[in-house]
Amino acid sequence: MKTALVIGTGLIGTSAALALARRGVTVHLADHDTEQVRTAAALGAGTGEPPEGPVDLCVVAVPPTYVAATLADAMRRGAARGYLDVASVKGGPHRELEAMGDLDLTAYIGTHPMSGRERSGPLAASADLFEGRPWVLTPTRDTDTHVLNLALELVAQCRAVPVVMDADAHDRAVALVSHMPHLVSSMVAARLENAEETAVRLCGQGIRDVTRIAASDPRMWIDILSANPGPVADLLADVATDLESAVTALRELQSADESKRRDGATGVESMLRRGNAGQARVPGKHGTAPTVYEVVAVLIDDQPGQLAHIFADAERAGVNVEDVRIEHATGRQAGLVQLMVEPRAAAQLAVALRERGWSLRQQ
Amino acid sequence: MKTALVIGTGLIGTSAALALARRGVTVHLADHDTEQVRTAAALGAGTGEPPEGPVDLCVVAVPPTYVAATLADAMRRGAARGYLDVASVKGGPHRELEAMGDLDLTAYIGTHPMSGRERSGPLAASADLFEGRPWVLTPTRDTDTHVLNLALELVAQCRAVPVVMDADAHDRAVALVSHMPHLVSSMVAARLENAEETAVRLCGQGIRDVTRIAASDPRMWIDILSANPGPVADLLADVATDLESAVTALRELQSADESKRRDGATGVESMLRRGNAGQARVPGKHGTAPTVYEVVAVLIDDQPGQLAHIFADAERAGVNVEDVRIEHATGRQAGLVQLMVEPRAAAQLAVALRERGWSLRQQ
Repeated sequence: MKTALVIGTGLIGTSAALALARRGVTVHLADHDTEQVRTAAALGAGTGEPPEGPVDLCVVAVPPTYVAATLADAMRRGAARGYLDVASVKGGPHRELEAMGDLDLTAYIGTHPMSGRERSGPLAASADLFEGRPWVLTPTRDTDTHVLNLALELVAQCRAVPVVMDADAHDRAVALVSHMPHLVSSMVAARLENAEETAVRLCGQGIRDVTRIAASDPRMWIDILSANPGPVADLLADVATDLESAVTALRELQSADESKRRDGATGVESMLRRGNAGQARVPGKHGTAPTVYEVVAVLIDDQPGQLAHIFADAERAGVNVEDVRIEHATGRQAGLVQLMVEPRAAAQLAVALRERGWSLRQQ
Repeated sequence: MKTALVIGTGLIGTSAALALARRGVTVHLADHDTEQVRTAAALGAGTGEPPEGPVDLCVVAVPPTYVAATLADAMRRGAARGYLDVASVKGGPHRELEAMGDLDLTAYIGTHPMSGRERSGPLAASADLFEGRPWVLTPTRDTDTHVLNLALELVAQCRAVPVVMDADAHDRAVALVSHMPHLVSSMVAARLENAEETAVRLCGQGIRDVTRIAASDPRMWIDILSANPGPVADLLADVATDLESAVTALRELQSADESKRRDGATGVESMLRRGNAGQARVPGKHGTAPTVYEVVAVLIDDQPGQLAHIFADAERAGVNVEDVRIEHATGRQAGLVQLMVEPRAAAQLAVALRERGWSLRQQ
């Protein structure tokens, strides 16, 4: 690929343009907001000048509602040899393009880079935005191989990991791993809105993790959910059914009848075991099966540099810390640092840290 | 307090005994499992010999189902001047004791140390187990002040943070901040059990956080939920109602009728905003209002010592890292380290890390 046209210079478009420009591709930038084009160009993402002829690849990175119209316009004026969009939902835009009837869809491929970010706009962009993240490609049987290869080249230049899926399967998948969990997290968090202060004081790491994503921007999520309401509603309805079963099982646990109590316990247990089985499938580090690390827990006070010293001491002991979690104490200037290491390295690390005066908590 | 009797030498009982023994209290240990008593005594938690006369405080740390009977037995033989239990549910045991009719409940106080742990048994115990964690005390109007003070002394010696609550309010509070979120997390995770592999590959940090606690031991959670089914069922039923409303709102978003679509968007938005409001109440570091930190994000490869070097460089820059999160890349030996620092220190840290050759990602 030698030339590209990026339409839409927000976070995703500018980041993709930066990655292409960094690798020597001539990138032309377009946006209805010319100020954003100037910003993106100033960051080194390309030029605001229009291309003189058709480019190799046209990347459409506009909000979901404008995707089909923007693509159709670019295709009708023959702007490029291949076209792709990066919208977070894939079935709808493709059907809209088909419905137009006059477009050569062999030159188009729908894609979705999975790079969660809280901020938007070209100033938040970075050529590294997609590094190591899945980038879904949804070719159909009509997609030209040359166009698929252009998309794969973009993904490689962004150092993302290509994942090929059917468009509707993609929409159901993101509903499952992102949209449904987001709404459920909001609904758990919502129960705290009017809770008593003493109850809220008892929150621990569990509810903190479950509700973390409930802090996201509602306007962005309205857009995301509006583009994929069907699959999300189906999944939420399934979760609601499970919840009703859990309520029934818990009420049985309150029963005076022992056989009912047994039924209740069986019902709750099967739900917990299904949760175990599902959780075990969530990919861990490096996208493979979850690695089981051993935890070495160190008590720290809140003096500057404590973390630096722990990590330096771990390095001196020749142990690679794979992951870290900090649990903060309630109402005290102290915390617990959990260092996750390969099981065979845990004992060695514990001994080394104790020798250097750290206070360890057994896990 | 000079003498104590700890009945039940599992994780909680042995940890409390260790904390008391460390501060010079003579601790007598009892358990129907004499092997556990020997283990706890060998760890320095006290003596397996029975006390010669009444002790100052009797701590009952047996499984929830045995709490009332064990307390009644100790009280009837006048084992101590004050009695407390540490079960995770408080209303039921108190009512059981009242129903016995012959006990002097002025000498009893129900308590609950909030120290989440995955492991059990005396070998997992530690005098630091309760450090900085809330320890709920549920005195009634009948509780003798002397007994309340004995309980406060135990909490102080364990360096926990005392929180006084009504017993039933406690049970509703733990249902809210712990039991309900646990079951909901299991139900989200359960949806992954039979999901397609390509969908599961798209999991990101959001669903990873939401489902983390779904990995817990089902047997332990059956016990916890069986002791508090009513409040948990009530809250799950509320969440189910919210879920049904969300399903309705999402179906409206699919409608051909524009005013219905507007209703749907309003419904989803209000749910997301309630989630924002609830999440904002979750206590952050040190149990106070959530502190807003600035994030400095650093790309690392997976070489040993990378974290140590980042932290050492942060320290050299005079910046205290308040919290840290590692986001692992999919399918690559690399990751993103998010350093949370005081807003005024963020720019300084970013400059220092860039100078030392780190690759930063804008947030």
